[in-house]
Amino acid sequence: MYDFKKDFPLFKDRDVIYLDNAATAQKPACVIEAEKEFYEKHNANPLRGFYPLSLEATDAYEAARKTVQHFIHAASETEIILTRNTTESLNLVAYSYGLNNLCPEDEIVVSIMEHHSNMLPWQMVARQTGAKLIYLECEKDGSLSEAKLDEAFSDKTRLVAITQVSNVLGRPTPVEEIVRRARKSNAVVVLDAAQSSPHMPIDVQKLDVDFLAFSGHKLMGPMGIGVLYGKKKLLKAMPPFLTGGEMIDSVTRDGAKYAELPHKFEAGTVNAAGAVGLAAAIDYINKIGFETMQERELTLTKRALEGLKAIPKVHVLGSELAEEHTGILTFTIEDVHPHDVSAVLESDGVAVRAGHHCAQPLLEYLGVRSATRASLMFYNTEEEVDALVKSVAGVRRRMGYGE
Amino acid sequence: MYDFKKDFPLFKDRDVIYLDNAATAQKPACVIEAEKEFYEKHNANPLRGFYPLSLEATDAYEAARKTVQHFIHAASETEIILTRNTTESLNLVAYSYGLNNLCPEDEIVVSIMEHHSNMLPWQMVARQTGAKLIYLECEKDGSLSEAKLDEAFSDKTRLVAITQVSNVLGRPTPVEEIVRRARKSNAVVVLDAAQSSPHMPIDVQKLDVDFLAFSGHKLMGPMGIGVLYGKKKLLKAMPPFLTGGEMIDSVTRDGAKYAELPHKFEAGTVNAAGAVGLAAAIDYINKIGFETMQERELTLTKRALEGLKAIPKVHVLGSELAEEHTGILTFTIEDVHPHDVSAVLESDGVAVRAGHHCAQPLLEYLGVRSATRASLMFYNTEEEVDALVKSVAGVRRRMGYGE
Repeated sequence: MYDFKKDFPLFKDRDVIYLDNAATAQKPACVIEAEKEFYEKHNANPLRGFYPLSLEATDAYEAARKTVQHFIHAASETEIILTRNTTESLNLVAYSYGLNNLCPEDEIVVSIMEHHSNMLPWQMVARQTGAKLIYLECEKDGSLSEAKLDEAFSDKTRLVAITQVSNVLGRPTPVEEIVRRARKSNAVVVLDAAQSSPHMPIDVQKLDVDFLAFSGHKLMGPMGIGVLYGKKKLLKAMPPFLTGGEMIDSVTRDGAKYAELPHKFEAGTVNAAGAVGLAAAIDYINKIGFETMQERELTLTKRALEGLKAIPKVHVLGSELAEEHTGILTFTIEDVHPHDVSAVLESDGVAVRAGHHCAQPLLEYLGVRSATRASLMFYNTEEEVDALVKSVAGVRRRMGYGE
Repeated sequence: MYDFKKDFPLFKDRDVIYLDNAATAQKPACVIEAEKEFYEKHNANPLRGFYPLSLEATDAYEAARKTVQHFIHAASETEIILTRNTTESLNLVAYSYGLNNLCPEDEIVVSIMEHHSNMLPWQMVARQTGAKLIYLECEKDGSLSEAKLDEAFSDKTRLVAITQVSNVLGRPTPVEEIVRRARKSNAVVVLDAAQSSPHMPIDVQKLDVDFLAFSGHKLMGPMGIGVLYGKKKLLKAMPPFLTGGEMIDSVTRDGAKYAELPHKFEAGTVNAAGAVGLAAAIDYINKIGFETMQERELTLTKRALEGLKAIPKVHVLGSELAEEHTGILTFTIEDVHPHDVSAVLESDGVAVRAGHHCAQPLLEYLGVRSATRASLMFYNTEEEVDALVKSVAGVRRRMGYGE
């Protein structure tokens, strides 16, 4: 089998078992080189100059937008807003759509599984507009029952904020069912694809969501670049969020005529190098193919899940099925604080994340103060999974407990 | 003399006379390498993990913040917020400070010379809070007279938005005098340092401004990283702007306790690689020294200004003195549209910017619909300036006019 790690310079230099991919992915050489090449050969402020360098920068930036468009099957490249990260994308929707379209009679449905970045902006919108925030509760395994969906949705539902994959449980949510229910009350659906986009093909037209957000860096792209997809009709009607250069058609002392989509939402000098790097990451994913990646990830996840489940006093959160983990295995070890777990694992060269994973309300609901998360990518190996399992198996003993 | 261009890979590959530095600067190899090295050796999500890679990423990110702190002589690194660019920095102040501290009785003073990014956010704040927007008018040469300052300021002035250097005229503004006047009515001063920071030392404590914003990319750093400085007392009292991961201390279903400065204002995964690149750019500037850079830039600006002024029917906007141009020479040629000027220059390999330079109200005041801007950096050469002058001298003839 092809050794995908060869594509990643970091793994040549560092002897690390990197299992914190849900926090950020490593970067293949092609991504690093794409950014470097932009700066070395085509660097200029895009969209502004008429000289060749600036036109090249514009072309590179707009080509990256098209790459993103095709990646998520959007109907038009004008529906692709390039932002800094998922958080900015979601805040843009909250400020520009939420504050201007919700009122005290309305209800916002937010799943309890949301990352803080798809929860805090809606708390803000609820506070400022008077709309009511309704939490969609999940079962202990992260599934959403008909009963809980019935409870959360009503004819007052105007906006639904939901993740496509929980960053703690790794479990995909039933987006189609949620969209179906949202349509009944004309609610818009805001989908957080930060955790899903690196692991599964996305078709925004088939999903029929209204907004979708993800980050470049989790997708093996550079830091500092993210995506907001929005349906053209909605984006057109929304006021700009950040204002400044490049997002206007004309400015007077009294106001401004804003530029057309997508530039209306891209104020200031854009991160063209970041966009080019993101496009390179998408090209890399397309070259390998989600099918291959998913096959690898499922094999690894099954192995890890079975290994962890076999260890006494270790509890994996979420589904019993590896298929419902999207490479994410969050677990607790009885009597051991996750920070100690991660310290022991670290001493074995295994890099995982410990803490609340920016999803405190979910952890509280699950009755867990904090937990340890191992998250896999297709470039991880069986040997790495075995090292994780072996290290976890030794934690209690090394912390002074009996076997 | 040392050939600074050798430090810039783009100039090895491309035969271009790059005089659009005020739009974005070229990147020295050390900046490109610093970002590359981060991804190849230390890439992880900073501030989140306890394993070595993440700790290294955190250290690199926080070290970059300190480099920025020392660069602008801030009292504390907690006063340095790393943003995407100047535009986001200014919008952060507008949304978080402006919307929460201004009311209908208040006046916002904005200079007519502002880039749209330091004007549109204040138009928004005025619209939303009812505060009155007062334009501080300049003279035709960009200077600010006592009389105009007297007209603009009043005891109702609560916020002053001013650029340190106009991106059209290149003229530095009298920041000390403006701060002195602002203090009389307890107004805060928001300084746009996008154009000044690449060309002059900045001491925020001496300037005593309340907020200061600039971009990495104009400073030879990467795209996608910017800076907001704010006085600690003000930042502490301000609510967060973007909300999400990493900017909280704890989150419940009802709300959140926010993290301490500076993280309160840095929601979501930070652009650590961009911060590292920005720090490398600052190190590069420090190695050369502003004194050397300014000497080079003044020599080049004098030569360009004299050359342009000697050409019939060419009019340079702003001061008569090269010292008051900060490398920026914006000009018009009688009867020739700036787009045609830039096209002719481009055919001679000279890259300049034509248009309204995101400062339409200033251009309108100056009675100019659009103009051509050449902007210099220390790495430009006398030969390049001569090529600019020669090309400009030929424009009218090549457009079919007599000499």
